[in-house]
Amino acid sequence: MLAFLGGTGPEGKGLALRLALAGENVVIGSRDAQRAGAAAEELAAIIQDSAGHGSIDGADNVDAAQRSDAAFLTVPYEAQRPMLEQLGAPLSGKVVVNVIAPMRFERGKGAIAVPVDAGSAAEEAQSLLPDSHVVAAFQNVSAEELQEPHHNMVGDVVICADDPDAKSLVMTLTQKIPDLRPVDGGGLLNAKYVEQITPLLVNINRIYKAHSGIRITGV
Amino acid sequence: MLAFLGGTGPEGKGLALRLALAGENVVIGSRDAQRAGAAAEELAAIIQDSAGHGSIDGADNVDAAQRSDAAFLTVPYEAQRPMLEQLGAPLSGKVVVNVIAPMRFERGKGAIAVPVDAGSAAEEAQSLLPDSHVVAAFQNVSAEELQEPHHNMVGDVVICADDPDAKSLVMTLTQKIPDLRPVDGGGLLNAKYVEQITPLLVNINRIYKAHSGIRITGV
Repeated sequence: MLAFLGGTGPEGKGLALRLALAGENVVIGSRDAQRAGAAAEELAAIIQDSAGHGSIDGADNVDAAQRSDAAFLTVPYEAQRPMLEQLGAPLSGKVVVNVIAPMRFERGKGAIAVPVDAGSAAEEAQSLLPDSHVVAAFQNVSAEELQEPHHNMVGDVVICADDPDAKSLVMTLTQKIPDLRPVDGGGLLNAKYVEQITPLLVNINRIYKAHSGIRITGV
Repeated sequence: MLAFLGGTGPEGKGLALRLALAGENVVIGSRDAQRAGAAAEELAAIIQDSAGHGSIDGADNVDAAQRSDAAFLTVPYEAQRPMLEQLGAPLSGKVVVNVIAPMRFERGKGAIAVPVDAGSAAEEAQSLLPDSHVVAAFQNVSAEELQEPHHNMVGDVVICADDPDAKSLVMTLTQKIPDLRPVDGGGLLNAKYVEQITPLLVNINRIYKAHSGIRITGV
């Protein structure tokens, strides 16, 4: 069971949809169980239309974390710390995939990376969840395109983690989404470089009126 | 005339070679004019072998900057400030292409981005050269591959600048190197995200034993 904590936003819904379509059982988490239930119902209808195999369900974040084998963090950065302070026990021993790119918008400047004392949102999550195995991934993948179930994704998912088994699990999950490719991005120390690609892509999207992503050439 | 200031290293030599092969007249700059001359001679031999059209010459950095219409900064970050403090006048009114990615290596950690007070090496260069038009570009392009004259490059050059004419010039120069593609990366404020992709790529290179680069998908 994969949980998408704070999964009612576009990135969470998009990833949950794609992995449920690939046959994974999914639970959408939210502070508000009812909102999570509504998002799950919405996705379940798309999955049924597309003859997907995975189950999908909604719950509050604590319950979703408890039920999961691995959990994706798909809240805005500001919500990461308050959410994770409640989830140390239910996420203990589990793989936690941090999709968060700390970012804000400023008039005339566009998207700007928010500095993080720990280095990256992923490293901060690891310090808040010392008993979990944090993996940074999927920050650069277009939420809009994930939400279109028949759109083949183009691009790479750079995956950073200190725990090799956790990294390997997320590389396998990435390959279930056509045609995303996992790229080993080394340790969690590299997560900040990947997180900061997101504001760059957001600004490029505005220039080109596109949904951009990245590919690592030569590997 | 294009100057490559601190152009005796692999990135400077690689870019100078490719642009001279494309017909640009090039001057390699160095603190030591003799060293610049030796690098220029080495490149001139390759250009002659490859039937390139551009001229190539060596000079000290001040002289090279003086003679140039546009100058590339291809020193390690630590050398940027001392070099530019001498070059305000000779680079005044000119386009200055900052190729520098502030980076250091640490045992057990690999390549690490060096924090820059100004935000990026490019923004720092702009503050040191207030009368020049700084453009950030080429930080993510493999020096090894640039130096192989018959190797077709794969990947994108994300170009960040506040001056549209300067940006446009560098986009045109990029297209002279087969098969690099220029991507408009917005203002100089975005340069830091691009500069920080370089340590990520260096670390990926070590994992995959490759010369990696990036491509922006969807644009």
